[in-house]
Amino acid sequence: MDMQDIIIRKRDGGVLSPAEIRFFVDGYVREEIPDYQASALLMAIYFQGLDRGETMELTEAMRRSGDTVDLSSVPGIKVDKHSTGGVGDKTTLIVGPIAAACGVPVAKMSGRGLGFTGGTVDKLESIPGLRTTLEPEAFMKQVRETGIALIGQSGHITPADKKLYALRDVTGTVENMSLIASSIMSKKLAAGSDAIVLDVKCGRGAFMKSQEDARRLAQIMVDIGADAGRRTIAIITDMSQPLGDAVGNALEVQEAIHVLRNEGPEDITELSVEIAGAMIYLGGRVRTYEEGAYVARQALVSGAGLEKLRALITAQGGDPLVCDDPSILTVSPSECDVIAQETGYIRQIDAEQIGIASQHSGAGRATKEDSIDPGAGILLHVKVGDHVSKGDVLASVFSSGRKKADAAAEQARKAYIIDKKKPEKPTLIKEIVGK
Amino acid sequence: MDMQDIIIRKRDGGVLSPAEIRFFVDGYVREEIPDYQASALLMAIYFQGLDRGETMELTEAMRRSGDTVDLSSVPGIKVDKHSTGGVGDKTTLIVGPIAAACGVPVAKMSGRGLGFTGGTVDKLESIPGLRTTLEPEAFMKQVRETGIALIGQSGHITPADKKLYALRDVTGTVENMSLIASSIMSKKLAAGSDAIVLDVKCGRGAFMKSQEDARRLAQIMVDIGADAGRRTIAIITDMSQPLGDAVGNALEVQEAIHVLRNEGPEDITELSVEIAGAMIYLGGRVRTYEEGAYVARQALVSGAGLEKLRALITAQGGDPLVCDDPSILTVSPSECDVIAQETGYIRQIDAEQIGIASQHSGAGRATKEDSIDPGAGILLHVKVGDHVSKGDVLASVFSSGRKKADAAAEQARKAYIIDKKKPEKPTLIKEIVGK
Repeated sequence: MDMQDIIIRKRDGGVLSPAEIRFFVDGYVREEIPDYQASALLMAIYFQGLDRGETMELTEAMRRSGDTVDLSSVPGIKVDKHSTGGVGDKTTLIVGPIAAACGVPVAKMSGRGLGFTGGTVDKLESIPGLRTTLEPEAFMKQVRETGIALIGQSGHITPADKKLYALRDVTGTVENMSLIASSIMSKKLAAGSDAIVLDVKCGRGAFMKSQEDARRLAQIMVDIGADAGRRTIAIITDMSQPLGDAVGNALEVQEAIHVLRNEGPEDITELSVEIAGAMIYLGGRVRTYEEGAYVARQALVSGAGLEKLRALITAQGGDPLVCDDPSILTVSPSECDVIAQETGYIRQIDAEQIGIASQHSGAGRATKEDSIDPGAGILLHVKVGDHVSKGDVLASVFSSGRKKADAAAEQARKAYIIDKKKPEKPTLIKEIVGK
Repeated sequence: MDMQDIIIRKRDGGVLSPAEIRFFVDGYVREEIPDYQASALLMAIYFQGLDRGETMELTEAMRRSGDTVDLSSVPGIKVDKHSTGGVGDKTTLIVGPIAAACGVPVAKMSGRGLGFTGGTVDKLESIPGLRTTLEPEAFMKQVRETGIALIGQSGHITPADKKLYALRDVTGTVENMSLIASSIMSKKLAAGSDAIVLDVKCGRGAFMKSQEDARRLAQIMVDIGADAGRRTIAIITDMSQPLGDAVGNALEVQEAIHVLRNEGPEDITELSVEIAGAMIYLGGRVRTYEEGAYVARQALVSGAGLEKLRALITAQGGDPLVCDDPSILTVSPSECDVIAQETGYIRQIDAEQIGIASQHSGAGRATKEDSIDPGAGILLHVKVGDHVSKGDVLASVFSSGRKKADAAAEQARKAYIIDKKKPEKPTLIKEIVGK
């Protein structure tokens, strides 16, 4: 088999055989196929696409390229959850406990974050004492006994995806639906759960700008799941403004607890119920999708979700008191407010601009080597559709120093558009694919 | 400037600025831009193309990447000639002397060949004693005094093209008109002549299979020439069967001398007159294209072309007696004939198959390190449209050993299709672009 032939076949619109896709992925990981041939093939794929069979084969080849997690020692239908990434998205901290409280085993490994804020693991680590590293046996044991464990991704998961993503990132070949879908799904398949709920973001702050694109991506991922024997549901949700009010690490943990106390912002509460409901449905605890959401809301309102979070924190060595008093989490001392320059309705809060401001405040990493400031971030005081008067505080930025806080607030200010006309509130949950 | 942005702009169908194209070519030569970004851009160019301005800029950037030849010390309009490559194409050995005999200074540097036979320089070296290496000053002096010099490419000409071509060759990005045109033209512009005649081959044995493709390539090259201030004419010619009867090195020199004695095959004679005529026209020695061909034919019939070849060979230390008796050139001793398996008309002699057979006989190189056998090759005894009887000798293969000769003849046999119906003779000269 010859890599040059494979490039030319795809370039000319042909369909690659399973053997050819495996040859490429395996050869690339073993460094027998050079970067320059891989990037040429990726660009050919950018233009010619991959069909369902090719996408599945690529996903499988990447999944098999490294370690895979065996969750068979945990009884029940394990359901994983993934978000394509948004600003202020702390749903994992909420839906994991709710689903677990409803009897769905949650054995979740999360990555650390690059970008606007830390990842789920970074957020959890803002809780004093909490460990996010567990040996595989201890991890399974905790899931069996507590119903939930949330740890950092360890081991050698999908090295082919890591290597290919790094190459795509510098060769203009990120933006292809099949490549995006197979990258996400290879990691989900390797993580060993039986079913998967995907939160596919769309809008200004998301990678998918339009609902049509989000739907296409969602369908490809649902198909991969189906072809791999893992039932998958994708929820397409709005990311035209940040999710909830908090953006940061400790700030987001605080908000997650508020949501689980049924005192949180409406949007993140609604989304959490939807996702947890889908997990409960796929976990076989109810018979319909709608029943899942109902049961999830009950677990939230009753406090069962909060108790499960408390159990999780306790099991992983964190201070469970945080569930009673989230304010014990340290928030960075320097505060700078973002002030409304005029009177009117909030027409837009650009999620991406808020994300950049959050990173400037110290909440996110620019490179893997950077450390994050768990107490840094932004608290939004208004959302799209709210009325404000000139001089009102739109948001507060928290940072380790005055200068950083000012710069981040300056950046955050760019996110806002205030208008005389009252805008329509964006619909948060747009559609469900694969229900 | 950022290579990633450049890749994405081209990927999305944008037009690259001159500065961006220079950034790419210069950065790639300096190894500041890695192969994997270059190959991604080349694949994006494959799909999105380059417009006239971009193609010119790429050509210029590659031209400037290395040494350029300054022919200003040679008086007159210097005309270069280039063929996109065919089987049995020894026209340089014929048209150079004819054009020089008509007063056009020919200062030609040729490459060595990879593939079916050697290049022009390899062919010349089959003449005992002939040198193909000259210092620049001696080269110019010979052109001034003799009117013609034919030497090997020396120095550091268009390193950017060499590096990019090597990358294109293994990444499925060879087959793009603008990339092909700029590769050829960058070398022609660096070679320093004032005008250029291009022989663009089309048909089974050529890179351009159709006349339409050949026309498009020709037009792009003519445009580059015009934009660079070098008058360029492209002649589109048939390569559905080998050109002339001889394929090899010594064999082709012998045939070139036969043509200059007006005793050569009709097709190669006709093409040589056409190309030499175009050179004489661009060299300003006549007023019309047609007059050029007329004058060229006169120089051939009168023997003036042969005398110029004799002067060239003498000036470069070769044995001029070869012009009187071409048989003094050594032809390899082992001969194996290709025999007609049936009676009928020759419908096809696949030039590519004959080329491969020639390489098998020892006349061509597979890698730069291989040496060639100057005496090896193939003599065709019939051409398309000729009638043969079963048992007739279609061609003779010459090689250094029996086994090689047999293998090459076996390969050559595959080139022939014999048919009961008399086929039409292919038109050799299809059209002229840029006249």
